[in-house]
Amino acid sequence: MKKVVVIGGGTGNFVVLKGLKKYDVALSAIVSMADSGGSTGILRDELGVLPPGDVRQCLVALSDSSRLMRSLMNYRFENGGLEGHSFGNLLLSALEKVTGSFEKAVEEASKILVIKGTVIPVTTNQVHLKMILSNRKLLEGEKEIYLSKEIDQGYKSIFLEPYPKVNPHVIEAIKNADLLILGPGGIYTSIIPNLLVEGVRESICKSKAKKIFIANLMNRTGQTTGFRVSHNLKEIIKFLGKDVFDYILVNKTNPPKRLLEDYKEEGEMVINDIEEKRVVSCDLLGPLGEENKKDLLKRNLIRHDSKKLAKELMKIVNSL
Amino acid sequence: MKKVVVIGGGTGNFVVLKGLKKYDVALSAIVSMADSGGSTGILRDELGVLPPGDVRQCLVALSDSSRLMRSLMNYRFENGGLEGHSFGNLLLSALEKVTGSFEKAVEEASKILVIKGTVIPVTTNQVHLKMILSNRKLLEGEKEIYLSKEIDQGYKSIFLEPYPKVNPHVIEAIKNADLLILGPGGIYTSIIPNLLVEGVRESICKSKAKKIFIANLMNRTGQTTGFRVSHNLKEIIKFLGKDVFDYILVNKTNPPKRLLEDYKEEGEMVINDIEEKRVVSCDLLGPLGEENKKDLLKRNLIRHDSKKLAKELMKIVNSL
Repeated sequence: MKKVVVIGGGTGNFVVLKGLKKYDVALSAIVSMADSGGSTGILRDELGVLPPGDVRQCLVALSDSSRLMRSLMNYRFENGGLEGHSFGNLLLSALEKVTGSFEKAVEEASKILVIKGTVIPVTTNQVHLKMILSNRKLLEGEKEIYLSKEIDQGYKSIFLEPYPKVNPHVIEAIKNADLLILGPGGIYTSIIPNLLVEGVRESICKSKAKKIFIANLMNRTGQTTGFRVSHNLKEIIKFLGKDVFDYILVNKTNPPKRLLEDYKEEGEMVINDIEEKRVVSCDLLGPLGEENKKDLLKRNLIRHDSKKLAKELMKIVNSL
Repeated sequence: MKKVVVIGGGTGNFVVLKGLKKYDVALSAIVSMADSGGSTGILRDELGVLPPGDVRQCLVALSDSSRLMRSLMNYRFENGGLEGHSFGNLLLSALEKVTGSFEKAVEEASKILVIKGTVIPVTTNQVHLKMILSNRKLLEGEKEIYLSKEIDQGYKSIFLEPYPKVNPHVIEAIKNADLLILGPGGIYTSIIPNLLVEGVRESICKSKAKKIFIANLMNRTGQTTGFRVSHNLKEIIKFLGKDVFDYILVNKTNPPKRLLEDYKEEGEMVINDIEEKRVVSCDLLGPLGEENKKDLLKRNLIRHDSKKLAKELMKIVNSL
């Protein structure tokens, strides 16, 4: 069975994992541990736990349990002191407290959710993502970075503090992979935070796996304003140290104009400007999924279709 | 397989169910839905859900899942907006929201916890327990009643508001039972609230099952001050309408003096003053259980031993 490793965090990962789950591949998801927004941020602050949000999304994507269990994991309490917390986040945090370890918590939650594959937190250190902009402003925490509208004006550096030790299972998974997938997802908030962990970029560069970059469908105004596929790729390569990609997967379908109008304030489409043999250009556009609707942000109105994405990825897997 | 039905709620039930779980009997727990204190009270107020606390305790008692899962259910968050909530209560409340029904929630939680037997909420109506004292003071909610130190001065009435419809599964379980067990547990806060639901006392009186009353070990000052076994029994019989009990199980061992000293403010031992053939008097005293320690209140320092209790109960079951 071919080993496929997906590196990221958040809804980008979700779509890829959900699609690939249905195929006969050994899946691992390496997940960013920088999230500091919403329910996750409150749990980090109040309980001192590691960020559960991105891990929860990957667990749900890989879950073979009932639809009810998956809905339960994404259910958000609507009132009182629990308001905004997703049940899955509370499960992971309570398990971390009871077992004394976030990794054990992920392991136990994986059993409860009958997941197909493995979810691996990129580090089990308590870290915060920080960014220094060109105007010397310091953005503290993934949430501040996610919300900033000034990143497109340039930044000096992005880093995790304190500098974290990698989870050894990450290095092992990357080393043994047949296919490594980066993207789609927030470049600064989901993908790069993985590459900033000690040893991750080196293992990716050394790995004999085929490497694929899946370009985002949409830019985010103030973050990646006007980015084309080449700009996205360049940003990732900057943190990897070299261009390691064997494939670049891009979408070639235009979303309905109405959706683009709705989306206008958030950002514009990412246009492909790379014409190379390694570029796979095809229709990857999905309808607005009914499932997990509550968990979707506006930016996800236009998103990848998990089935189309998985079909293209499996063509590559089967050619290995 | 003999059908054993336990009627109550709270820690009293817990000990009986935990002990009987290890034997080859078909167990059902009928659970009071009047709880309004602590985490349960907050969830009722803020989310409008039915009270999960007593049901959670019964589920954990009957669970055949790992020790970790049981610890998880009783784990209480210690900080922030989640402070004081037990994870199991959040599970039941989230399941109620996702499935749209408390009964479904109990059913799903039963699967997750691999329970042996059935947990049946006595009603699925949203009710509050109220008590009018002899001094005309109105106590609203199980919590106020539980905390009152004036009940031993007499009360005029105790009732559920609004008057609830019984859960039909309750009537069925009582009808088909071979053995019905009432107690131990808070008379006013755990046992009587079941008898106040429409049709419950009639079904108990009509049922061909053998009926057993397990007397409490300790009184609660201000509630059952100076009660002997006969007083406890009389109170229950008052709400049943007649003396239906075939057996009365009482403890004959004295707890260590040190423990009685610790307990002094809370209450004194319940002394047995009934000398009848149906009284089974034996050693039922347990050590302070390590398990679920966090969930125990001071009153549970002196409590029944689940193994000793189950052994005596099984003698009766096997004689049927």
